[in-house]
Amino acid sequence: MDQIQVCLSPALLNLYDLEDKIVVVTDVLRATTTMISALEIGVKEIIPVASRNEAKTFMQKKNHLVAGERDGKKVDGFDLGNSPLLLHDFEDKLKGNTLVITTTNGTKAIDQSKAAHLVMIGALTNVQAVARELMSKNKDILVLCAGWKNRVNLEDTLFAGALCEALKFDFDIYGDAAIMSQQLFVAHQDHLFESIQNATHYKRLKSHGIEDDIRYCMTLNSSEIVPILHNNKIVKVQPITI
Amino acid sequence: MDQIQVCLSPALLNLYDLEDKIVVVTDVLRATTTMISALEIGVKEIIPVASRNEAKTFMQKKNHLVAGERDGKKVDGFDLGNSPLLLHDFEDKLKGNTLVITTTNGTKAIDQSKAAHLVMIGALTNVQAVARELMSKNKDILVLCAGWKNRVNLEDTLFAGALCEALKFDFDIYGDAAIMSQQLFVAHQDHLFESIQNATHYKRLKSHGIEDDIRYCMTLNSSEIVPILHNNKIVKVQPITI
Repeated sequence: MDQIQVCLSPALLNLYDLEDKIVVVTDVLRATTTMISALEIGVKEIIPVASRNEAKTFMQKKNHLVAGERDGKKVDGFDLGNSPLLLHDFEDKLKGNTLVITTTNGTKAIDQSKAAHLVMIGALTNVQAVARELMSKNKDILVLCAGWKNRVNLEDTLFAGALCEALKFDFDIYGDAAIMSQQLFVAHQDHLFESIQNATHYKRLKSHGIEDDIRYCMTLNSSEIVPILHNNKIVKVQPITI
Repeated sequence: MDQIQVCLSPALLNLYDLEDKIVVVTDVLRATTTMISALEIGVKEIIPVASRNEAKTFMQKKNHLVAGERDGKKVDGFDLGNSPLLLHDFEDKLKGNTLVITTTNGTKAIDQSKAAHLVMIGALTNVQAVARELMSKNKDILVLCAGWKNRVNLEDTLFAGALCEALKFDFDIYGDAAIMSQQLFVAHQDHLFESIQNATHYKRLKSHGIEDDIRYCMTLNSSEIVPILHNNKIVKVQPITI
């Protein structure tokens, strides 16, 4: 039986062998939730970049919008911040175009995962769609929680647990981090938004007045989009044509 | 209000400032449980050493016994392994003497914590006694889970959660790792032994036939001993004399 493991912090990623695994990167508040929403709206592709300076080089490029935050706030001069809900105000500009995105933790975690067989992007909004996609592959899985500056966080752990729970009949839930994540998700699945009210990143973001955003990020399965990394760009998984 | 934080793996310890903190090191299965039991039996002091070779230098020394395991098994030639229950077979030899101990994860975690204001040794068997001792100090606390070769493990996380739960009215439970640990402990507190039956280290140790040992390690508050590190040796906290 294929395994699903969980890495609770990017600082622990060196303990895992990525080769021949599918790595599912999550940064629930808010990078990966925003990426899923952007593809849902109709963005053609997303270019994740690790630094603000790299993102800035795309600012005057045709058909490119640049999004980014540091410490939960939009970077000055960028077209967009890191809010999945506010993306809808830019729908016309986004459709068919390229979104360049840099965030505190999420894009770095994607960058660290590139040695994997495949990098997939997950969040609570697409956990069931990701699970379905993973069931169609015969690969071991590692969930990489982006965390907050290498510290473990609750919301990413809840996503890891939700994915373990969704895959529990088809995969071996391997290792204590996976077991713990699953147990935490099961304990909180009926009140996910409430469960993070004491979490540190919730408090940090709430002070920026984005409670609606957080509520959206903590809602399960609003999207069927499964983003994957392909040639260093994040695109939708294409339906298999027979 | 003073804070209690939790570090789920020694590989994340560099994210925390140890200065002026009390670090409570735990390696529930079985290094720190064994240390508590040894002091309970009447060992004068414990010398934790990181390597087998260092431990070997004490082997012919008068009034010293050498204990150690690697990967859950007793090191060949050592007087003792790492079993808290089997210590009782050596009671006469242990009383008043020095125990030198080296284990896969626990003694290394102690070594990494030396920059702290004070290093305390915790396990499920002494969590209430440790909590009482901490309440008498005015210091921030960091619980360091020894884990398994830098991977997060369930039993050490449960200890961290038990300590947070015991201190919840007197300390600020700070950071998501602490919150998650506390939630896991609360969910499992009535069936701690059963809760780790799926944990990876339980499976590893069970294959060595030491289920009684594990059951003992997973039992709350059988000891009033609070070990601390003093001049690189682990000794009992002395009752305050007025």
